[in-house]
Amino acid sequence: MTALIGIDWGSSNLRAFRIGQDGAILEIRRAADGVFTASGSFDERLRAVIGDWPPAPVLLCGMVGSDRGWHPAPYVKTPAGIANLAGGLIAVPFERQAFIVPGVAADSDVMRGEETLVAGLPPLSATLCLPGTHSKWIVVADGRIAAFRTYMTGELRAALLAQGALATGIGQIASPVAFAQGLDAASQGVTHALFQARARRLLGRLAAEHTASFVSGVLIGAERAAESDHPGPHILVARGTLAGDYAAAFDFTQIIDPEPLAARGLLAIARAAGLVA
Amino acid sequence: MTALIGIDWGSSNLRAFRIGQDGAILEIRRAADGVFTASGSFDERLRAVIGDWPPAPVLLCGMVGSDRGWHPAPYVKTPAGIANLAGGLIAVPFERQAFIVPGVAADSDVMRGEETLVAGLPPLSATLCLPGTHSKWIVVADGRIAAFRTYMTGELRAALLAQGALATGIGQIASPVAFAQGLDAASQGVTHALFQARARRLLGRLAAEHTASFVSGVLIGAERAAESDHPGPHILVARGTLAGDYAAAFDFTQIIDPEPLAARGLLAIARAAGLVA
Repeated sequence: MTALIGIDWGSSNLRAFRIGQDGAILEIRRAADGVFTASGSFDERLRAVIGDWPPAPVLLCGMVGSDRGWHPAPYVKTPAGIANLAGGLIAVPFERQAFIVPGVAADSDVMRGEETLVAGLPPLSATLCLPGTHSKWIVVADGRIAAFRTYMTGELRAALLAQGALATGIGQIASPVAFAQGLDAASQGVTHALFQARARRLLGRLAAEHTASFVSGVLIGAERAAESDHPGPHILVARGTLAGDYAAAFDFTQIIDPEPLAARGLLAIARAAGLVA
Repeated sequence: MTALIGIDWGSSNLRAFRIGQDGAILEIRRAADGVFTASGSFDERLRAVIGDWPPAPVLLCGMVGSDRGWHPAPYVKTPAGIANLAGGLIAVPFERQAFIVPGVAADSDVMRGEETLVAGLPPLSATLCLPGTHSKWIVVADGRIAAFRTYMTGELRAALLAQGALATGIGQIASPVAFAQGLDAASQGVTHALFQARARRLLGRLAAEHTASFVSGVLIGAERAAESDHPGPHILVARGTLAGDYAAAFDFTQIIDPEPLAARGLLAIARAAGLVA
């Protein structure tokens, strides 16, 4: 029995969860249909993914609620918990009941999507690291988002390695040594340390195929320098090589897979809003 | 009477100076023929610019001596003065006597071109700021390059504003207020402060057309944070809007135009090498 259809619709891909009454994920569908990377009307695109699923309300989170998404959903202010998110849902016209989860705003920062992952955790007090294109460090107090900071880590990494002085034009091989050198160099200032990815190569001190590892080290080192003062426990919400890189740079108490968190968070918000019994 | 033909051949353009016995610049020719932006053999490209000038030796500096230039010129190590540069000239085959000035290397940093600007100054002890695609901060002691650091300021600014989360797609208007906000935000960590250029826009705290000013402030603020401890006097070697931005962020004792410095530096190095009487 399907209680909720949860949609995590980010800038570069979409994940659809068919969720049961007991919170079990009955089915996951993944599509490369990102908010910013595909075109067509949002209702048609959503129908193509979940049109054949049984009747159930739909709750969406992520960039689908941005000003370039389906419908702009406002930001709720920190401190923000599940009740605040549930109170800020925005309805979108669709053949099923459908709502978008609001983002969360701090003084000079915003998130959209990560708030739902936090809602998928049991209520806790911790510092969460959610690495990615725009890495988030989120201080959670009693299950509510108290404060957070975003770092352009993934976007800078991709932009710098694609072209310009740091582009090598050759395949990259992960190097823990080069990564550690980058982490260390970050203390000299990020924009200076990044240039060293070129200078060290020219001086024979960094192999061209280790450039990406060095750059990752510098950018993650910049996060480490700014986030070292937060209260523990420190929890990493990541998977794959990204999880490995961050685990090498920080002492995390725990590493959590983000994918099921999105489904759990959507269900928790849907319940708080009375969408699901 | 032409004593030397000096060529400052950088990644995106070329400047040719016809220099007299007394050091006077008799003629300047500027070409958009950058080492990385044009193609064809280097001797033909140089001939097209200075082929009709009277007989005189040629001294070149800049990226023309890089591994992607005419001929790789090695780096001399810091501390490096005019005598070290003159001792490291590399001959290139051309119908005139022609040499390339070596670059300078520190432990994890390199320069190519800026050493010649330093050679164009009277022997001094100072900290020089040479902003640009790769901004250099150079500590000069008794006319020799003692230490330096490069910042990817200009390259990052261009890459971030061209595409991704900070691209606005609209024309930019210089804003001293947004620039000052960026300078201030840099203290929270560069990669976090850069994301604020997007977050503040979404929150209505930064006009889209002031994004470039905010980003400039953040990136120049990163240089300020790392370079505040150097011995004075602090001298800015820059012109135009770049000079204005840096002068707004730092207290400089003096601002010097880089163009004639290149000609003076090439002549000083040529004299030390015995190329010119």
